[in-house]
Formats: sequence, structure tokens, C-alpha cells
Amino acid sequence: MEDHSIKVNFCSSEKEKPKSDQLQFGRVFTDHMFIMDYSAPLGWHDARIVPYQPLSIDPSAMVFHYGQSVFEGLKAYLNPDGEAQLFRPEKNLQRINRSNDRLCIPPIDEEYALKAIKQLVAIDKDWIPEAEGTSLYIRPFIISTEAFLGVAPSHNYKFIVILSPVGAYYKEGINPVKIAVENKYVRAVAGGTGEAKTGGNYASSLKAQELVANSGYAQVLWLDGVEKKYIEEVGSMNVFFKIDGEVVTPKLNGSILEGVTRNSVIELLKYWDIPVSERRISMEDLRQAHQEGRLEEAFGSGTAAVISPIGQLTWNDTDLIINNHETGPVAKRLYDTLTGIQYGKVEDPFGWIEKVREPSKVKS
Amino acid sequence: MEDHSIKVNFCSSEKEKPKSDQLQFGRVFTDHMFIMDYSAPLGWHDARIVPYQPLSIDPSAMVFHYGQSVFEGLKAYLNPDGEAQLFRPEKNLQRINRSNDRLCIPPIDEEYALKAIKQLVAIDKDWIPEAEGTSLYIRPFIISTEAFLGVAPSHNYKFIVILSPVGAYYKEGINPVKIAVENKYVRAVAGGTGEAKTGGNYASSLKAQELVANSGYAQVLWLDGVEKKYIEEVGSMNVFFKIDGEVVTPKLNGSILEGVTRNSVIELLKYWDIPVSERRISMEDLRQAHQEGRLEEAFGSGTAAVISPIGQLTWNDTDLIINNHETGPVAKRLYDTLTGIQYGKVEDPFGWIEKVREPSKVKS
Repeated sequence: MEDHSIKVNFCSSEKEKPKSDQLQFGRVFTDHMFIMDYSAPLGWHDARIVPYQPLSIDPSAMVFHYGQSVFEGLKAYLNPDGEAQLFRPEKNLQRINRSNDRLCIPPIDEEYALKAIKQLVAIDKDWIPEAEGTSLYIRPFIISTEAFLGVAPSHNYKFIVILSPVGAYYKEGINPVKIAVENKYVRAVAGGTGEAKTGGNYASSLKAQELVANSGYAQVLWLDGVEKKYIEEVGSMNVFFKIDGEVVTPKLNGSILEGVTRNSVIELLKYWDIPVSERRISMEDLRQAHQEGRLEEAFGSGTAAVISPIGQLTWNDTDLIINNHETGPVAKRLYDTLTGIQYGKVEDPFGWIEKVREPSKVKS
Repeated sequence: MEDHSIKVNFCSSEKEKPKSDQLQFGRVFTDHMFIMDYSAPLGWHDARIVPYQPLSIDPSAMVFHYGQSVFEGLKAYLNPDGEAQLFRPEKNLQRINRSNDRLCIPPIDEEYALKAIKQLVAIDKDWIPEAEGTSLYIRPFIISTEAFLGVAPSHNYKFIVILSPVGAYYKEGINPVKIAVENKYVRAVAGGTGEAKTGGNYASSLKAQELVANSGYAQVLWLDGVEKKYIEEVGSMNVFFKIDGEVVTPKLNGSILEGVTRNSVIELLKYWDIPVSERRISMEDLRQAHQEGRLEEAFGSGTAAVISPIGQLTWNDTDLIINNHETGPVAKRLYDTLTGIQYGKVEDPFGWIEKVREPSKVKS
């Protein structure tokens, strides 16, 4: 794609911004959005920032029928100098192209998409909330829009970026959660779409999640779809266990999402000389480690919660209580360091932070 | 849901209808569509038939992000008396509710939905093409429309029915196809969404289909996601094999779609006293039956093609040529009988036909 400039059509009146203490996740959206179209002869074209508005889409558009879609999730944070900054955004754009490949969607230009995201965030910078732990959630996504009911890759797509101010994930401090190990339903299987960030993986997870939520569990822990023995993910997060002083996370196998936070956790642990390994872990091994007092910590990692400690894992009728339902020291240190880097409060030795340098008052 | 009457808002001018010999599949849509909304306090409400038009949907609507959607496919046929008729529509509406259950979508009233489909077909009856083998494709579908980025079942949905005149599937007579057995990619797995008609299953199938199409194959044959040994489906059809005089199809196992045509094939074979069984079939068993000269026929079944004979199956580097690349007698008899019943040209001993009795000229 040629590097066209992005046309900007500002909104005529700004919406009222929610108060910081009333922010939820993903319910309120900012004044503007980014859109770019794809069609076969032109490639990606007509990049534009426009007022946030409904999409007008034919009812036969493929996304409604055959689920050909991908998405990403990242955040913009305000640093102590009041500048907007992003956390490893290039990782999200690399991943959306890996998802695109699996879903037969044409790749986007990652540098151009990052430029678009930064320009959009700059325009709506006043929407980044200032209170502790709050941020501006960034949702890039691609949908197939060809008006055709044949089962085949679409010839038309829209790449869209929307922004939503979100509240602190932990309103009363980090709180370990209860997780149920899922034995019946499967999120993804080798040869499927598990490593892609595509709607179908999330649609298929709703039923299991709904059933365990009724029993007081926060999330499910997914096992592999083949043997239902090996640990894959927890809810929509990657998962880590500290066993005998070593931090272990399931090895990427094609059905596990390659999380940006997962990768950052691994890099931080290596930097701290804490042993970390990616390998296959069975629930039976985990149960045995717990029984022998070697399971020291468990936590999930993801963009929304950053680090989510696990206080209890229920597998069949057995409850594994982990670290006395308390947040462990490694989970705490990871959370403090990652959020410290994200908000520009601690040093970033990795070059993970990408500042949004455009002036925020582009309108004046 | 209470049985409200359906409001009708007719289009102001009718679109030009395509010529029968230029019809494709799913590219052209009729003058009207049916819509009904769901929201938590009201349930399904505001049932209406309106001019075919784009949908206006928030970019944060869940269907774009988490794939919570289901659909169905059936057809309206003109019988020799010029009446419109449907083929076992209640089966599609029962199935959409089974899909709804798996995808955490509230159920629809099946009788009311059938009434809506019949009224819509009656209004656009002039769109049912008359040429041999043509029909009006009916696409009911449900999409999640809540403007919310949380991973949870939506609180808002739209149930929509659109209609598309489609050409004859076999323009030059039935033609057996070449099928490649897929060893890498997986369509669905036990515990997943394989038996639901939801977008994610189709999105995940695109990549394998694209790769084999480049090598001259019409479709892939999917194996089970666990052992990759057992036969599941072919492309988006169910599959049948005639071995030693017995017709065999994979037993429903949670990852195979329960096809309406599949069920009709089984019922017809029983009616004809041709041995038929639903059981697990491995590719190795099939290869061996072929080698010993016992594999007499193979064919797919589905709404689009009705019956699609398979002339060749390629598994790894082995080509199994079936019935000398010719359509077998059982496949031919099934095709002739099923299409005969659908078009009202042969007796329907099963009560499968549902006539659209409403007058076609409801406008006058």
C-alpha cells in the first residue's frame, strides 16, 4: 500500500466524557474513529479519521455469516508528564497480520497502521483518563464486508480503530480469583484458529464461561482439545505457574494465543534472573506439584488485567488453593513493574514504550 | 414471545430481476427483508418486513469482535402449479435454536419464524426463478448487536431473513468432484462449536479450502480434530460412502453438522430398504475398502448441491478413484428423488413439503 496521508473529518461537537470513577470497560467510545477500506483492485485505501458513527453494512456482508474477522487490543496511558504513550504496539500489529494470514485476510502495513493509531489517539487525547489505573483502550479490528453468501474469502474489508476510556481493573487492589478447569468445552485445537485473535474463538468460549460464572468462578482454565490433559489458557489470558522456584507457562502450540503481556512477563523474568520456561504442563502434574507443596504461585496475563493472580483452581471435585488465596511476590512484582513501565513511572530498559508525539490540540 | 403481527413496509420501486441463465449463488437479493430485534426486557420484538437495505450497526457491536452469530440456509421452489414451497423448514428452525443454545443466543419462536419466512417469500414470490434447477435461497441469521467490548453474551440481537435467487448448481448435469483429505487444518473438535451453524466454523475452514483449491480440488474432507483419523464432513456438506452395498455416514458426535439433507438421505434410503448406517469411519478403513474394490460410491449432501458425487479422494499421496469418476446409481436416485420432491414433481410420502399459501400479490 502506498503511504497516503490520513484524511481527518473532525466531529462538530464533542461528547461528554465519563467521570474517572464511573468508567467501565468498553461501554463508552471517543469522538473519532479510524477507517480504511480494502477492495481487490485498490488494496487498502481511503484511510480516514471520522466522527465515531454507526457502520452502514449490507445484511449479506460476509462478517455476519462466516465470521471472517480479526481484532487486537492495546492501551494508551498518560505518563507523569501528561504525554500519551503506548506499550509495545508493534507486537499487536505483527499479531493482527498473523491472524490475517490464518483467516485469509490481506495483510495491513504495520507501520502505517501504527501511524494511524497514534494520530487517532492524539486527536482524542483528552479522552485518556487521568486517575490511577485508568487508560484508553484501543481496539483495531478488521471485518469482511463483501455482499456475498458464498463460503470463500471476502474481496472487501474494513480496518477500523475505535477507542474507549476504561477504568482501573482492580478497584480495591489486586484480588486473586477462583478458576474452574474446563473438562467438557474446548476453546481451540491444533489445526484450528486458537493462535489467531478472531471472533470464533471468543464465541465458542461463551458457553463454558457462562456455566462456571453461575458457580462463582471468574474464568475457566482451558485444556488442550485433543487429550484434555494439558493446560492452554485461562479465560482470555495466558497463564503462568511458579513451581519449585521456576515460572512455567504453556509452550505456544498453535492453539494458544501469543500474548503481548505473556511475552513481556517472560522477558522481565529473564531480566531478573528468575528461572522461566515455556513447556507443556498437564493438570495432573500441576495437581501433584500442589499436593507436594511445590506450587507457589499462579497468575494470568493479559492486556486488560495485566496480571491476575489465581487463588484457587477447581479441577473436577478437587480445589487447589494456591498461596493461601493471596497474591504472590512474583505476580506482585510483575504487576508493579509492567504497570510502572506502561504509565512511565519506572524505567523502561526494553524500549517497550512508544510515545504519541503528535500535538494533542491538532484542531487549533 | 407473543405472536405479534408482522408490520410490512413495501419498497417504493422494485429492483430489476436477474435473468435465469445469469443467476449465481448469493450475489443478488430480493426487494424485501425480515427483521426482528431482541433486547433484555422486551425479548424478541418489532417484527417487520422492510425494503432490503444496509444495516446501521455500531462499530463496537459484538458480532464484529467476538463472532456471536448463527445462520441457516434453505430454499423456496416453484412447483408445477406455480406455487412456492419449502423443504422441511421446521428442521432449519429447530437447528437454529440448537445453534443459539451453543452460542448463548436467546431462542426464537420457531413457528413464528416460519410464519415470517413464508410471509416474506410470499411478498417476494416473483423473485423465485422458474428455470430448471433454480430456486430462491433463504438465509435466516442472528447477529449480536450490543455496543460493548466485554467478552460476554450480548444483550441485544437482530434476527434477519434475506432472500437470493440462485442458479442451478449443476449447469451441465451432475459432475463428480475431486476432494482432498485435510491432514493439517481442523474445522471443529469435540467440545467446540462444530455442530452449530456459526460463523467461526466457516472462518476457520477458509485457509484449508484456499490451499486445496490451488491444486484443483473442489473441497476438503475434514478429519476429526483429536486423532485426525476419522471422517467428519466434506467442505460444507455431510458425506456418505457406499461400501459393500451399505451406505455409511459419520455418526453425529458434536463436531459434525446435523444436515437437513443428510437426514433426508437417511430417511429415503430406509424407505427404499437400502442398508444405511451412521457410524465412525476412519480414512484407513475407507482406503482399505477402496483397495479391495468394496467402495462403490461416495457423495456429499447439502442444501446448495443437494447431492454432490465424489469421483476422487486424495489422501496424502494416494488418489482413491471412486466409481470410475462417474455418478453412482444411489447418488443419482437420491438426487432425482430429493429434487423431485423439492420441486413438487414426484410424490412426497414424508410430508416434507410446506407450501407458501399466502397470496403472492399481497400488495393489490
